[in-house]
Amino acid sequence: MHLTGELLIGGESRMGTNGEIKGVNPATGDTLEPAFGGATKADVEQAAALAAEAFGPYRSLPYETRATFLEAIAEHIEAIGDDLIVRVMAETGLPRARLEGERARTTGQLRLFASVLRDGGFLEARIDPALPDRKPLPRPDLRLRNVPLGPVAVFGASNFPLAFSVAGGDTASALAAGCPVIVKAHPAHPGTSELVGRAIQAAVASVGLHPGVFSMIHDSGYEVSQALVADPRVKAAGFTGSRRGGLALAAIAQGRPEPIPFYAEMSSINPVILLPAALKARAEKIAPDFVAALTLGAGQFCTNPGLILAIDGPELDAFVTAAGQAVAAAPASVMLTPGICKAFAHGVAALAEDPQVTTVARGQTGQGHTGQAGLFSVAASAFLANPHLHEEVFGAASLVVRCADQAELAAVIDALEGQLTIALHLEDGDHAIAGALLPALELKAGRILINGFGTGVEVAHAMVHGGPFPATSDAKATSVGTLAIARFLRPVSYQNLPEALLPAELRTDNPLGIARRVDGKMKLG
Amino acid sequence: MHLTGELLIGGESRMGTNGEIKGVNPATGDTLEPAFGGATKADVEQAAALAAEAFGPYRSLPYETRATFLEAIAEHIEAIGDDLIVRVMAETGLPRARLEGERARTTGQLRLFASVLRDGGFLEARIDPALPDRKPLPRPDLRLRNVPLGPVAVFGASNFPLAFSVAGGDTASALAAGCPVIVKAHPAHPGTSELVGRAIQAAVASVGLHPGVFSMIHDSGYEVSQALVADPRVKAAGFTGSRRGGLALAAIAQGRPEPIPFYAEMSSINPVILLPAALKARAEKIAPDFVAALTLGAGQFCTNPGLILAIDGPELDAFVTAAGQAVAAAPASVMLTPGICKAFAHGVAALAEDPQVTTVARGQTGQGHTGQAGLFSVAASAFLANPHLHEEVFGAASLVVRCADQAELAAVIDALEGQLTIALHLEDGDHAIAGALLPALELKAGRILINGFGTGVEVAHAMVHGGPFPATSDAKATSVGTLAIARFLRPVSYQNLPEALLPAELRTDNPLGIARRVDGKMKLG
Repeated sequence: MHLTGELLIGGESRMGTNGEIKGVNPATGDTLEPAFGGATKADVEQAAALAAEAFGPYRSLPYETRATFLEAIAEHIEAIGDDLIVRVMAETGLPRARLEGERARTTGQLRLFASVLRDGGFLEARIDPALPDRKPLPRPDLRLRNVPLGPVAVFGASNFPLAFSVAGGDTASALAAGCPVIVKAHPAHPGTSELVGRAIQAAVASVGLHPGVFSMIHDSGYEVSQALVADPRVKAAGFTGSRRGGLALAAIAQGRPEPIPFYAEMSSINPVILLPAALKARAEKIAPDFVAALTLGAGQFCTNPGLILAIDGPELDAFVTAAGQAVAAAPASVMLTPGICKAFAHGVAALAEDPQVTTVARGQTGQGHTGQAGLFSVAASAFLANPHLHEEVFGAASLVVRCADQAELAAVIDALEGQLTIALHLEDGDHAIAGALLPALELKAGRILINGFGTGVEVAHAMVHGGPFPATSDAKATSVGTLAIARFLRPVSYQNLPEALLPAELRTDNPLGIARRVDGKMKLG
Repeated sequence: MHLTGELLIGGESRMGTNGEIKGVNPATGDTLEPAFGGATKADVEQAAALAAEAFGPYRSLPYETRATFLEAIAEHIEAIGDDLIVRVMAETGLPRARLEGERARTTGQLRLFASVLRDGGFLEARIDPALPDRKPLPRPDLRLRNVPLGPVAVFGASNFPLAFSVAGGDTASALAAGCPVIVKAHPAHPGTSELVGRAIQAAVASVGLHPGVFSMIHDSGYEVSQALVADPRVKAAGFTGSRRGGLALAAIAQGRPEPIPFYAEMSSINPVILLPAALKARAEKIAPDFVAALTLGAGQFCTNPGLILAIDGPELDAFVTAAGQAVAAAPASVMLTPGICKAFAHGVAALAEDPQVTTVARGQTGQGHTGQAGLFSVAASAFLANPHLHEEVFGAASLVVRCADQAELAAVIDALEGQLTIALHLEDGDHAIAGALLPALELKAGRILINGFGTGVEVAHAMVHGGPFPATSDAKATSVGTLAIARFLRPVSYQNLPEALLPAELRTDNPLGIARRVDGKMKLG
């Protein structure tokens, strides 16, 4: 493994000249070598120009070639071997097993999008054959398919240095859609980013693509990110991060002369609702599972269970007691960055100092940039009256909201902002209340899950990792799973095109053998 | 036919108290009775509150009931009989045949969405069955379907008083999606709006729905529209109108505490590209067809051909001469409103006075609020240098851009803003140049059509009536055709739900018999 600290602009690499960024080992506080050069606006310009140049040839490749490219990226990432895991561990403090799993998720996700390209369903092909004899007017021949939007900016996330970063879900889905990608690497893991970025560069070269298909820049401030979103050649962006950062970039995306879609995943407290029969049957069984989910990865998941909702009573007391014991035993965990650790400490302190909030338990303390887990409780009336209690505290902190009855539980649900996930813990005896709550839950979250926690986000066809504002900036989109490709596509209709000019997916003889909607009826390929 | 001038709020009607609006017969200039009362912000509040209340029961109806409701609206519109046509003629100056066709389009569109509901494809159902034995971790059961967003605001368009107004495409697709609708009637046809609005009210009653499913308000200013888009209970909006109006409302939609999707169709000049072999073979045949499309409905179509692009030479001269003759013979046409007529006259005067623009021909003049068709020409170099020449002149005016060669034609295409449609006129000998241009055209328009004009917008499964900014505010959406329903839906994922709690479309036994994607493979119902 040799890290240069360079920007990757198209097929080239060169040292950035706009300040320097160094990784920090959050476990030790040590600064990591080498220094990474920050990008200038001129670097953004060049990356965007190359991406625009690459877009035409890249999108016109056969889908099979695009699939091969995604698989080549996966292979090149695997070929880095253990050096990658070692560097990510150093930059993030995350444990080996988690990172090996995350690497498998990352390469699996690339290969899944290769299968999406071969299936062809993402094209949403539709054909309405001509009806020349229709009265009063003939119907023209109409055919529809999705086309890619253009170059996409991807902002690497701090908390998934592989699966939501340089070759993560946003990049995989944008490349699958036919869009060149410019990644703004997260400054918390620049070395990881260079390793993965060079793997993508190598895949671009090995498949023989236009080198503008991929670029990666470093930056630790705001201006370069803003310039990237504002560049007229960039046609969409994917972001995972803070609500403030997401909203600032979204405003730029919307304020451009040509506004573009900006897909930000920002903020979610992922309510967990414990229904009466479940609490009665297994409060003490749910509690340790909850605390395991809460403290997993130092609580640094977008889907971390930050809120527990239940009807007050002795069963809830039993749950809180058991969960408190588990939290008290939870070891301190190294957090991703000193900044995240500090923000977590502030957020937890604000909860602890709130006169209406009871501190149920705090976890073990530790050395360095570690987070101390926290469990708190509050009456629903106070939760309803204090919007700040609805805000995300990023890390292993959760708030139990004690509701007087089912009506107050429903009122709390109605008062929630949009969420990525809502979990229900239930037994058969809870079906009536669950059925009554479900319509409201569907309007608040992108994913509803039973007897579990949101922290496992399966990369699948039926996954939605998204949700109403502020969970994301676009509730119609998902950033995990095969449907994520739809963010970077738009439909085009072709009227009366000669067969010779039609794209393969719309030719009458269906040479790609894909499923299409013909005259309104779905037909398999 | 008895018009009261009242607002329709849920199942009630009452006279608005915020000023009054009267229709004007643009053919005669006569004011039409009765006066329609303008809505207050309190009326908006009440309509929104009723819509929010109706949303839960409405979205939980069986899809078959929703389909029946759409069909009932169509029947109630037909039951108005000729009174409807007579009133629309008086308010718009549009001829009977056009309006009878537009009525059929409107009822046909409602019935098409009924068939969409029965087909179930709009739900985008996906099932990834559990894999309990998968290593290293089991896969949960994941199922996905689309759910409606919530109450939708619809802004009636001036130029399609039936098909894009109270019961038009936006309303039909929103109601099909499961969203209650609040229509802001266009002040140019308030009587038409009341007739159609009462037909919807009658359908709501006859099917026994919650009356909040539909409301309609009148207003001729901005404040009430702004209040409607800003209301927290409104979750999406559909708009057809001016670029300025669309952008102003879009900014409100994005600036809300909870931003919402705002689907605005705003501005398009719909380039028509005449390729060399086609020009050579039939310049004089294309010309009258073009002028017929240009002057249809006084040029008041979103898809009116406002721009002709071709390579300069004697064949283009022949086309321009023939088209000029046809324009010169074109009778003056009554325009929709005095305001639209005045704006058209201003736009045409600006073209005529531009020193770089040649006036090829003007049509016949007429009395009252009539538009005089206009054909102009300009060198591509001047077109490229003057962005104001790219702006829409709403009405029967078109500009021929003379390109020196294929490279300059390509440069003009690259310089265009986003469009609803681009038409290519071609012969077999033009396939090479058409094939070379197509990738660029796909990035500029929502629909590409061959040997025709964009003015016929088929209501079909494969239609896209949309396109990149500023044609619309969201290039991923269409406002015509069955795909329009997707604007008002978002996906929700269900993890490990017991069968008893799953919606019918996701139950394992597929009781609705719909097509679903199972484990990534499309399966017919």
